Amino acid sequence: MEQLNPQSVLVTGSNRGLGLELVRQLVQKSNPPKWIFATCRDPAGPRAQDLKNLAAEHPQIVIIALDTDDPSSVKAAAAKVTACLNGAGLNLLINNAGILNVSSLETETPENMAETYKTNVIGPMVVVQVFLPLLRKAAQESPLKGMSCSKAAIVNISSEGGSITNVLEWQKGHVIAYRCSKSALNMLSKCQSLYLAKDEILCIALHPGWVQTDMGNKVGKAPLTLEQSLQAILHTLGRLSEENTGTFVNWEGNLVPW
Amino acid sequence: MEQLNPQSVLVTGSNRGLGLELVRQLVQKSNPPKWIFATCRDPAGPRAQDLKNLAAEHPQIVIIALDTDDPSSVKAAAAKVTACLNGAGLNLLINNAGILNVSSLETETPENMAETYKTNVIGPMVVVQVFLPLLRKAAQESPLKGMSCSKAAIVNISSEGGSITNVLEWQKGHVIAYRCSKSALNMLSKCQSLYLAKDEILCIALHPGWVQTDMGNKVGKAPLTLEQSLQAILHTLGRLSEENTGTFVNWEGNLVPW
Repeated sequence: MEQLNPQSVLVTGSNRGLGLELVRQLVQKSNPPKWIFATCRDPAGPRAQDLKNLAAEHPQIVIIALDTDDPSSVKAAAAKVTACLNGAGLNLLINNAGILNVSSLETETPENMAETYKTNVIGPMVVVQVFLPLLRKAAQESPLKGMSCSKAAIVNISSEGGSITNVLEWQKGHVIAYRCSKSALNMLSKCQSLYLAKDEILCIALHPGWVQTDMGNKVGKAPLTLEQSLQAILHTLGRLSEENTGTFVNWEGNLVPW
Repeated sequence: MEQLNPQSVLVTGSNRGLGLELVRQLVQKSNPPKWIFATCRDPAGPRAQDLKNLAAEHPQIVIIALDTDDPSSVKAAAAKVTACLNGAGLNLLINNAGILNVSSLETETPENMAETYKTNVIGPMVVVQVFLPLLRKAAQESPLKGMSCSKAAIVNISSEGGSITNVLEWQKGHVIAYRCSKSALNMLSKCQSLYLAKDEILCIALHPGWVQTDMGNKVGKAPLTLEQSLQAILHTLGRLSEENTGTFVNWEGNLVPW
């Protein structure tokens, strides 16, 4: 069976929820990555305490400030990651940072639309632009054939709420800004996959399930625990290949329609 | 055969390209609408001269200033439309205003992403919010059964360039900001269709074809003339019913995948 074995992983929005559990499960693997770059807006703030506690026990975790809304912050983070990697590439970039504010079609505001798009779409685009040289280096220097998350990959954490076909859980909340942003993120993922195929960088949009996080609980009672979701996600990431690039899959690896 | 016979139509971005040709063909119908609200950012500017010339010949055309990026401008326009309609509703709202700036995945900027989203997605959302009372009034007071563009409808001018499945003409241009905005607009259209089904307001995303306009010519040689595209579009709009609400169709009425 294929396994997820990247040497280096970067996760945005890693101080809470999905991002934090992802870092936790990565570092607890029997064969953990050498480098886990756990990024968040404010590592010095109180909301990063759990991440700091985790990092104190695991030297593979490097906490780095990265505000996806601020291109200069993304570039500063890339400089730090480049220095740590000391000539090596970055195998796996996980665009996890995202926001959701509850709204209805009639009450949605231009301000929330713009803010949500900035964090959920523009941020991931800029992060990929800035980290692309490190991803290309990883792809070029890997002995692995084809595409995989162990070699060079971009995983954009999307949502089936952004599936125009399914409009998951419409009755639980319109969340127009969120849905529109995730549909746009799915398009971004598809474009990244088309552009980066020649570099053998795998690109995917991933629906993590409706998970018991602060975000997930904003729209009702989420069915999946963080642990369940992330266990399945790590298993799925380990099985992805060039056949999956440019697709939209859920935590279990099943295809989600656009 | 079904025909397009709305009493009142509003078109955004009607001073040039698709919008202008749409107004022209609507007013030249054998049975034209009583009211054609032709809106654009700056009716007093030189880029509205063709529209002004057309309106001078046809009293059904009412030119109104409407900047979709500015909610207060949208509200002011709605007040003028309400006054003109004098108690009647608005049958057909066509969100046509949109922008496209050429870019590649690596050169796309946060500023262009934000600006394009504002015009192509947030604008249409606000226009629908503000004109919803007039659309509802039209639906309630129409003697027509079911849904139709002659009764009460929202047509969002999208693009197959925003189809995540097809990513039309990828080789001709990445235009990331444009593609992401159109995917998001498609989601908005779907959400509007779900929310407004109870009001019997038809909502659709429409790909007008790759048309010979200033915008269409930015990414190569467009195959369709404006006249061809709009003739087909008016024919298609006349045939839409509740079976089509929430879908994505092209100028000829064929389904486009999300």
